[in-house]
Amino acid sequence: MSKRSAVPPPVTAVLDASSRWLPARLGEAEGQLREQSQGHGQLLSADLSATLAAGGKRLRPLLVLLSAGADGGEEAVRAATAIELVHMATLVHDDVLDAAPLRRGKPTIAAVSGRARAVAAGDLLFSRAFAFLAEHGDSRSVSLLAEASAALARGELAQRQDAFDLGISERRYLERCRLKTAKLFECACLLGWFATRPPRAREAGRETSGCDERARSGAEEMAEFGSEIGLAFQLLDDVLDVSGPPERTGKARGTDLLDGTVTLPLILAAAEDPSLRAADLHLLEPPGAEALCDRIAATGALDQVRARALAMVATAKDRLAAASSDPEQRQLLDLVADGVVQRYS
Amino acid sequence: MSKRSAVPPPVTAVLDASSRWLPARLGEAEGQLREQSQGHGQLLSADLSATLAAGGKRLRPLLVLLSAGADGGEEAVRAATAIELVHMATLVHDDVLDAAPLRRGKPTIAAVSGRARAVAAGDLLFSRAFAFLAEHGDSRSVSLLAEASAALARGELAQRQDAFDLGISERRYLERCRLKTAKLFECACLLGWFATRPPRAREAGRETSGCDERARSGAEEMAEFGSEIGLAFQLLDDVLDVSGPPERTGKARGTDLLDGTVTLPLILAAAEDPSLRAADLHLLEPPGAEALCDRIAATGALDQVRARALAMVATAKDRLAAASSDPEQRQLLDLVADGVVQRYS
Repeated sequence: MSKRSAVPPPVTAVLDASSRWLPARLGEAEGQLREQSQGHGQLLSADLSATLAAGGKRLRPLLVLLSAGADGGEEAVRAATAIELVHMATLVHDDVLDAAPLRRGKPTIAAVSGRARAVAAGDLLFSRAFAFLAEHGDSRSVSLLAEASAALARGELAQRQDAFDLGISERRYLERCRLKTAKLFECACLLGWFATRPPRAREAGRETSGCDERARSGAEEMAEFGSEIGLAFQLLDDVLDVSGPPERTGKARGTDLLDGTVTLPLILAAAEDPSLRAADLHLLEPPGAEALCDRIAATGALDQVRARALAMVATAKDRLAAASSDPEQRQLLDLVADGVVQRYS
Repeated sequence: MSKRSAVPPPVTAVLDASSRWLPARLGEAEGQLREQSQGHGQLLSADLSATLAAGGKRLRPLLVLLSAGADGGEEAVRAATAIELVHMATLVHDDVLDAAPLRRGKPTIAAVSGRARAVAAGDLLFSRAFAFLAEHGDSRSVSLLAEASAALARGELAQRQDAFDLGISERRYLERCRLKTAKLFECACLLGWFATRPPRAREAGRETSGCDERARSGAEEMAEFGSEIGLAFQLLDDVLDVSGPPERTGKARGTDLLDGTVTLPLILAAAEDPSLRAADLHLLEPPGAEALCDRIAATGALDQVRARALAMVATAKDRLAAASSDPEQRQLLDLVADGVVQRYS
């Protein structure tokens, strides 16, 4: 899947397989996203419209809508919109931190309008996400999204804290992936799931019925489905940073290494080839980063990481099968899960 | 009032005049703020604890608690905590944008831990604020706070957009103040007000009773009270940037001018002395900024701005008198309003 194509293959595959409701709902969410980027003054509209137009996979909205299923109405579309606003906010802020000139082949807000406007634009996207959910009185969704958004920030902080440290453990790496990526995937699935599963135990004074019990249990499985494919997604992202090719990933090989970000490919490679532990990422320059990528690949670590990601997707599908008895829903979400591991393979 | 003193005079005056409930509730909010800054990993805790310990006036929590009154319980304390978390988030991000080394005489997160950690720490504070309100199912409060938080970001963007432009109008300046400062003051008063005014029309299926009508009308007056003192607060902040003295404000005179921020003192001064319009803020250096401050002061513009701020405080008090029939509440909020204009006078 190229990050530059307008509609990436996994989404296309899901849309092809779905009946008419999914494209319509994705279109509604896209319209809401556009609406949220207007009415904030001309300059900002330009900034945010560019970010919106740059597209992206819209994977998280897709997960929300599919987890809600064909019966998901306005609440599902709202959640899909809000989660993408939070995702966009983190991308805008990430580009400030990394001083990134391009994202998905287009200039970033940070590059075009400066750091100051980019930080404020990200803050505005965060605020709009919560305002948008809360204005419809949906405090469970706000709560879930705010917790996921806090996890994202903690993941970002953990990554900065671990930077340049070749001694970090696999466990620590996975915890970071959970915070930075998997939590928002999990949140997407839960927001969608709850959008079509009334009555709600919390809002009905915490009384539980047999129906609630089933809904809650299903929710746990859906949360694990989302979390596992989120982890797989991040692991494969980290493989792609090492494997490239740059003309498909849109960035040079070893970009993470140059930032000091130690990921699973390097952790596993260093276990195979201890001489890799002597690398000093502080001293790395682009040619050295490419050479380090080659050394990592030579250990077979990339295949090991890919195998783990595949195992996570398999676990995810098991969880999904336990959560949902709707054949269309399972088929479409299975396609999304497959799409995550088929990127660039 | 010195920004460096632990408990600033207006707060002291209010605490002295209040019965025992207010210090107890402020203490609870302080405890909640501390709690929200823990449990996010050791490094971040250190960052956020330092920010918390650096103190601040806690004006917004004070407004929440006083607007709720003596009957304000947990909901008021929660709102007081959440609004200060949002305020802290914006300060942390502002310090990133301005590359500020110190705030309230202490090193900023941006200076100690770098821009990247400061952006993420601010994002975390934002997320925690909304998570904290939403976990108690309080979606009206989330909605109000998220709208105010979006306004803050828009105000920041507007200020960046207007930077270095000596042609901006007084009206545009006031609109910026409304977004950047007054909206959060207004939000503080509304959050407090609603914390003790059930039943709620929205949550009771939008039915209205005579009691609701009165509560809503009172809410409008309280919102205007908050907004007017917020505006007065910002106007006086902008006077202090020109007047100093630096040993009391904690920053050099003309800091805003060096950032290209055109405020009311300069706008009014340029109307009196058109030669000021020829100034090019891009070329300004600290000695030139001090000289420009002297030229602004020489026009009498500072007194004009002070007079406007005083008029706003008078309007605020009128609105308060219309909103509240509780003598203690009016007395204490009047003290806060007076405190806003007594800074450094």
